[in-house]
Amino acid sequence: MNRISFAIVKESLSAILLRLGFSQTRAAACARLFAEASCDGVASHGLGRFPRFVAMVRNGVVDPVAEAEKVTGLGALERWDGRRGAGNLNAQAAMGRAIELSREHGVGWVSLGNTNHWMRGGSYGWQAAEAGVIGICWTNTMPNLPPWGGSEPVLGNNPLVMAVPRSKGHVVLDMAISQFSYGALAGYSQRGELLPVDGGFDEAGQLTRDAAAIERTERPLPIGCWKGSGLAMLLDMIAATTALGLATHQIPADSLRETGLSQVFIAVNPAALGEAQKLDQIADEIVASVHGSRPAEAACKLRYPGEQTLRLRKENMQLGIPVDPVIWKEILSI
Amino acid sequence: MNRISFAIVKESLSAILLRLGFSQTRAAACARLFAEASCDGVASHGLGRFPRFVAMVRNGVVDPVAEAEKVTGLGALERWDGRRGAGNLNAQAAMGRAIELSREHGVGWVSLGNTNHWMRGGSYGWQAAEAGVIGICWTNTMPNLPPWGGSEPVLGNNPLVMAVPRSKGHVVLDMAISQFSYGALAGYSQRGELLPVDGGFDEAGQLTRDAAAIERTERPLPIGCWKGSGLAMLLDMIAATTALGLATHQIPADSLRETGLSQVFIAVNPAALGEAQKLDQIADEIVASVHGSRPAEAACKLRYPGEQTLRLRKENMQLGIPVDPVIWKEILSI
Repeated sequence: MNRISFAIVKESLSAILLRLGFSQTRAAACARLFAEASCDGVASHGLGRFPRFVAMVRNGVVDPVAEAEKVTGLGALERWDGRRGAGNLNAQAAMGRAIELSREHGVGWVSLGNTNHWMRGGSYGWQAAEAGVIGICWTNTMPNLPPWGGSEPVLGNNPLVMAVPRSKGHVVLDMAISQFSYGALAGYSQRGELLPVDGGFDEAGQLTRDAAAIERTERPLPIGCWKGSGLAMLLDMIAATTALGLATHQIPADSLRETGLSQVFIAVNPAALGEAQKLDQIADEIVASVHGSRPAEAACKLRYPGEQTLRLRKENMQLGIPVDPVIWKEILSI
Repeated sequence: MNRISFAIVKESLSAILLRLGFSQTRAAACARLFAEASCDGVASHGLGRFPRFVAMVRNGVVDPVAEAEKVTGLGALERWDGRRGAGNLNAQAAMGRAIELSREHGVGWVSLGNTNHWMRGGSYGWQAAEAGVIGICWTNTMPNLPPWGGSEPVLGNNPLVMAVPRSKGHVVLDMAISQFSYGALAGYSQRGELLPVDGGFDEAGQLTRDAAAIERTERPLPIGCWKGSGLAMLLDMIAATTALGLATHQIPADSLRETGLSQVFIAVNPAALGEAQKLDQIADEIVASVHGSRPAEAACKLRYPGEQTLRLRKENMQLGIPVDPVIWKEILSI
């Protein structure tokens, strides 16, 4: 891994996006989201994903000039059309609108249809927390997860994000509903490592920690087996019905053609409930109760979601973002 | 199992609640929620839980005359105080208020603190769906789940409910964040059966399907391991901070003293977004895609969350609710 400064990464991506037809402002905002994902340690949805994003602008799936717009709404609830624009910019706009709504109505709920992959979901959780509000959002995806008891991927792994603002460090959960992503499975199988827990089914229909076997059967495990299977279905159903957009089973199962996603963005403004200091104190005490609890093994350090992110972000802003030289060369050649 | 008609079950419970100090109306409503849980096949949170509920009225944890009331709010967002009243009536009132708010603001969000165990969480999902709105709600619980990497239960299994209305049958997910409840573990260990999947850790710190071993270590598994651990923490944090109520680590870890819970009730009114028929069609198509997908084994029937409930409810309304004679005798002797 090389380390490259945040500013150079962001400028390099921005210059490419400008050439692809993004406006100056939108190129900068889109580049920043990619750079931030890598800076926060999520290169898989940062620089690692950028070449595919460029390919999807070039193949016409992502429209560089389309901006999300409101279709209809009532009070705190709005439906937006993503118009097949850049997924991360659309998601940022939708969470931004939910935050605005929460200032006026206490809560904001924006359902966004007809959009593209939002890259790192956590970005919109951090966005809400940095605005001082609680954020919840999720997206559907192309079919990549069989329901419990099934062998055909008709559900998506539908990442779910929850964020709580806290002055000592926001708490941000960003998780897909599969136990391991295909990217994670590929990493384990390439390194010849067993998964730490069962991740799916092998050819004999048995639960297994063999990542390569799961890649072959295409039967990764939903978190909690039947529970995650139901959760993935409900997240899809709520997103698609409120966005009046596509459901997972209608989304092309091709990573270069995955489009028309449905997403939900919720913001809750705790200031509307008064006693914002108390919120901070309650969140701190929950963090402290986990930090102070007995680890299973002496070496275990118990962490809250987002804790690692803050540490990595600080380190990478100082030392430069770790960049895979192969991917960086590919990006520079675009 | 004996079968007893819904009406007799409800009347019997109602008569007991009247004697305990509930008003006529509230005794009937509370009895109905218990009877419905058993009728829907969730006896563990219906009749099976009634004797403990009575004990908690008698020991002063549940106040039979206290009603939840609004503390503060802005627009679509309200904070309510449950005043340590009956948890199921408080939850029903809070979801009822969220539904009302959603009629006016598109969305309603009610955070309820200082309340008691809500019994069957699914009840409030069905309530929302029957009112034609999407419902999401969750509760924290007493500490009963160690965080991932920990051996001390400082998290709760925090049941999460999501419901989507659908004219051919509402879709209602009702799940705790642990892979198996302690009640389920007890069932497996009493029957001497292995769990169908790993459910926690044994004394050697290894994942196991041996329910009795997990009962001994008190280390059940969160769904998705580190993922469910993070999810349980965020659900607790959002509930406690918006309700300004107790967090899991502050709730007495004693099933007869578990009180002061924090809960969230969200309703979204799809009619505010227009095209309610389209909602139905989208939900139907998602159900059809799961029903029509390839099962892992020929005998598997793929189902959506809530599908079994409808079948059972119909059967039990016709034939009577299956009632454990030991529990029924205990109830009649109250």
